[in-house]
Amino acid sequence: MPVRYLPVLSWARTYTSHQFSDDLLASVIVMVMLVPQSLAYAMLAGLPPEMGLYASILPLAAYTVFGSSRALSVGPVAVISLMTAAAISGLGLTAPAQIVSAAMTLALMSGLFLVLMGVLRLGFLANFLSHPVIAGFITASGVLIAVGQLPAIAGLSASGHNLPELLQSLSAAIVSAWPEFNLPTLITGVATLVYLVWARTSLAALLLRAGMTDRGAIIVARLSPIVAVVASGLAAWHFDLGERGLALVGDVPAGLPVPGLPDLSSIPWMNLAGPALLIATLGFVESVSVAQGLAAKKRQRIDPDQELIGLGASNLAAGFSGGFPVAGGFARSVVNFDAGAATPAAGLFAAMLIAAATFVLMPLLAWLPKATLAATIIVAVWSLLDFDIVGKAWRYSRADFLAVTATLAVTLMIGVEAGVAAGILVSILVHLYKSSRPHVAIVGEIPGTEHFRNVARHQVITHEHILSLRVDESLYFANTRYLEDLVYKEVSERGALQHVILMCSAVNEIDLSALESLEAINRRLDELGIKLHLSEVKGPVMDALQRSRLLQDLSGQVYLSQHLAVQDLI
Amino acid sequence: MPVRYLPVLSWARTYTSHQFSDDLLASVIVMVMLVPQSLAYAMLAGLPPEMGLYASILPLAAYTVFGSSRALSVGPVAVISLMTAAAISGLGLTAPAQIVSAAMTLALMSGLFLVLMGVLRLGFLANFLSHPVIAGFITASGVLIAVGQLPAIAGLSASGHNLPELLQSLSAAIVSAWPEFNLPTLITGVATLVYLVWARTSLAALLLRAGMTDRGAIIVARLSPIVAVVASGLAAWHFDLGERGLALVGDVPAGLPVPGLPDLSSIPWMNLAGPALLIATLGFVESVSVAQGLAAKKRQRIDPDQELIGLGASNLAAGFSGGFPVAGGFARSVVNFDAGAATPAAGLFAAMLIAAATFVLMPLLAWLPKATLAATIIVAVWSLLDFDIVGKAWRYSRADFLAVTATLAVTLMIGVEAGVAAGILVSILVHLYKSSRPHVAIVGEIPGTEHFRNVARHQVITHEHILSLRVDESLYFANTRYLEDLVYKEVSERGALQHVILMCSAVNEIDLSALESLEAINRRLDELGIKLHLSEVKGPVMDALQRSRLLQDLSGQVYLSQHLAVQDLI
Repeated sequence: MPVRYLPVLSWARTYTSHQFSDDLLASVIVMVMLVPQSLAYAMLAGLPPEMGLYASILPLAAYTVFGSSRALSVGPVAVISLMTAAAISGLGLTAPAQIVSAAMTLALMSGLFLVLMGVLRLGFLANFLSHPVIAGFITASGVLIAVGQLPAIAGLSASGHNLPELLQSLSAAIVSAWPEFNLPTLITGVATLVYLVWARTSLAALLLRAGMTDRGAIIVARLSPIVAVVASGLAAWHFDLGERGLALVGDVPAGLPVPGLPDLSSIPWMNLAGPALLIATLGFVESVSVAQGLAAKKRQRIDPDQELIGLGASNLAAGFSGGFPVAGGFARSVVNFDAGAATPAAGLFAAMLIAAATFVLMPLLAWLPKATLAATIIVAVWSLLDFDIVGKAWRYSRADFLAVTATLAVTLMIGVEAGVAAGILVSILVHLYKSSRPHVAIVGEIPGTEHFRNVARHQVITHEHILSLRVDESLYFANTRYLEDLVYKEVSERGALQHVILMCSAVNEIDLSALESLEAINRRLDELGIKLHLSEVKGPVMDALQRSRLLQDLSGQVYLSQHLAVQDLI
Repeated sequence: MPVRYLPVLSWARTYTSHQFSDDLLASVIVMVMLVPQSLAYAMLAGLPPEMGLYASILPLAAYTVFGSSRALSVGPVAVISLMTAAAISGLGLTAPAQIVSAAMTLALMSGLFLVLMGVLRLGFLANFLSHPVIAGFITASGVLIAVGQLPAIAGLSASGHNLPELLQSLSAAIVSAWPEFNLPTLITGVATLVYLVWARTSLAALLLRAGMTDRGAIIVARLSPIVAVVASGLAAWHFDLGERGLALVGDVPAGLPVPGLPDLSSIPWMNLAGPALLIATLGFVESVSVAQGLAAKKRQRIDPDQELIGLGASNLAAGFSGGFPVAGGFARSVVNFDAGAATPAAGLFAAMLIAAATFVLMPLLAWLPKATLAATIIVAVWSLLDFDIVGKAWRYSRADFLAVTATLAVTLMIGVEAGVAAGILVSILVHLYKSSRPHVAIVGEIPGTEHFRNVARHQVITHEHILSLRVDESLYFANTRYLEDLVYKEVSERGALQHVILMCSAVNEIDLSALESLEAINRRLDELGIKLHLSEVKGPVMDALQRSRLLQDLSGQVYLSQHLAVQDLI
């Protein structure tokens, strides 16, 4: 029981010095990667930069205790930060203190939802975000983030919840600034951007040629943003670029956050419930798929319900220590894994390193150009864009294509929350539509086997007085009328018919609606002198049927296999 | 093509004099049954009684041309009238002319939705109303109708959208009237009620004993309301009961309605769109299940998409001729069928008879007591109550029980629209929940057969290096993470494993999410030296997989049957 809710107990008692050194190395690397990301994503969320660091201390420690993944690195992530910005701007607050309170509240509420879902084992709800919907949503979010950050490179700003708003705001900003752009800002922004793109695309290959190992080269390439942050900070300080119009982060309070709850009385916190639920769900889905992928590589497993509690604890910790919503980051977790993190303790060490760093860093942050952070964000979200999913979905199935394009289009054109909602809705509707018109095959026996297949696709043996129907779907309310209609149609076309066998190998459930339809079919076929039989009924379905009157009333029999049924009725 | 949209062409060209006499007899019987129902349901909908008659003329003629059922009798029905009352009272109108316009508009909009659904072949949408939801909704509506009409028997009135409102309004009415009840009203109401209950329960048996045929006895019993209407009207006229406080229907305009559109400018017609959609869907579902049941008795079929157009035309006709929303009535259609209606022409004849009758009836309606109509309604809805469904659902499956109780409770406690919505939502969520945690069986071969069954339920042969998994559900976004988790769990527990065979006999679809999961499983098992195979993949699923890269990348093979797979890998 304690281990169920406290995975820390499963590894901490056998913690070795070897694991300790592995974890420590990984934590140093993650720390170097996390610091610039934290600052940048706080800015993306429209929050003071120190909140990014706050969100990278206690949340990591909480995950160490409650999380089940040995590689997941939690902290601020791009998409969740964008959703945070959207949620907070929806409140229409203006006072900075209120905005900070709203961000903390959002983290607390997301944390509560996650813990609740974990305790009630509601993790399955996250399944309704299908892969195409997630891919479409993240791609669209990436576009929104990139377009929103692009103007910061030229010292401008654009705001909006969707592409039309952003583009309108961007063009207005360009027109009003034209042709007076701030040169130090442009140089800083463009130089950082060019450097980061180069680091992302060519640095690893260069290091490999210089004799570095695969893993080493990839890790070093991933750490390149810290170089940009340090270099542009130094340049700003040395040339006093702040005086020449370069926007800097400016003074931030030094040291650790004072733990405490946000001031709920000053904000309409009830309005944050919807966004918090979306953030919780999306953060969970992303984190779990990253954690699951990394665990499988070592033949380990993670427990999705425990992940809910781990992530929930992280978000509660974020809300309690001046942070904003967090989740497991993909790139950071992969680096953590590749750097050799052996246990979740790596996260705790990273948290301690960042806590220590805040004392040193905070005064230096004053010199950090905002254009550098914007460039960092743009390059980071570049890897989120996955337009291939559109083509892949188009080739594979129209239903998935519809889901992915609906998600993409609504997210871009209306906003993140509407986009997720549209994606979920479309994929559920499409699924229900498909299962409401199931594939039904008339089957016959493949000569020389006991195997029955579709008469339209295989050379099979059939009999005039027996109709064997295989319905390729669970029988439930959405297709029960279709089934009745189909059986009556087939029966009305066959004069010599004496037996109808429903082959139930693909029927995984018969709900009450379908049961009543089967009772009606049985009754009506009986009136016409035709017997209804069932074959290959699965255990759980049979269990349910035994609680009904159908088996007593059935005019025919229930056979173990279609082969035995036809043998008997031939 | 003309026959597709005009089923009348399929039977009118071969119409015989024999069919004519059958239809004519049925139409007379239906007319006698329909007149009191029309008046009563108009009152239930909160509309002037003549609208009930109007809704029983042109709509029947329209259905004759566009409907596909040979037995369905359209016109005002109880549940739809209750929904009409709820929809109109939601607009907060007070002027009688506005209320009439709103009812006509509701019929027009329902008709438009139905025709649109028929042309776009969206009839499948109605499938989302499961049997338990419909049964729960109709039972709850019946309770609301009965409780709402009960006070009229004592000359009181109660109004409200749900049980608490109705009971509060009823008790207030009783308290304010106490102890001065109008005796003529009480006598008329109670006498009618007692007579109708007796006719419903005992008259048919009495007639049978008197030597009448089964069919004849049931038809005569069904016509008993007309006797109550005539008798109470005569009594009211003879004793001048109107002067003594008995509420009468009063003067209504004589003759046929003047065709024309309602005055849209005076009502917030946009607010009727939601209710119109619900009324259209519910009316369609009820009509189709009645029509399907009656058609199957004669080995005939109805076309659900054509029924949409037929019902749509009826509702458009109702809206265009001073009526309100109509649907196929269960009791009336059964009487029509039993009376021998051979073609939809029976409906046309009934319409002509009612049209002729309006000239005679309208002046006489002035004497009809409202208490008589209320008693007619109460007895009519009594047969709608089906509380057995709760017990049946409880015994059969908890999921269906949840759907039926949610529908019942929300309809009674909040109202009809919320009730239908809650029922649909709960049944879809429960379905998705179940399919997100599918039943998965580890299977082995039953000795001496080629048949594979669950190792937990049958004595079967298995092999240590082969894992045969049968997933009893389509693989789609809701269960794809569950599948990954399950495969990794099984693999992590078996050291000697070399082959995993996914037996796909119950897999009716693999969507893009599941495809990506299978690709990931294939990749990770391959890294562990385990081959992934598929068996018994169905035609349509295989077609889809052939459009993906999975089949090329698969470490193992695809086998026609599970038997062949194990034979090959043994």
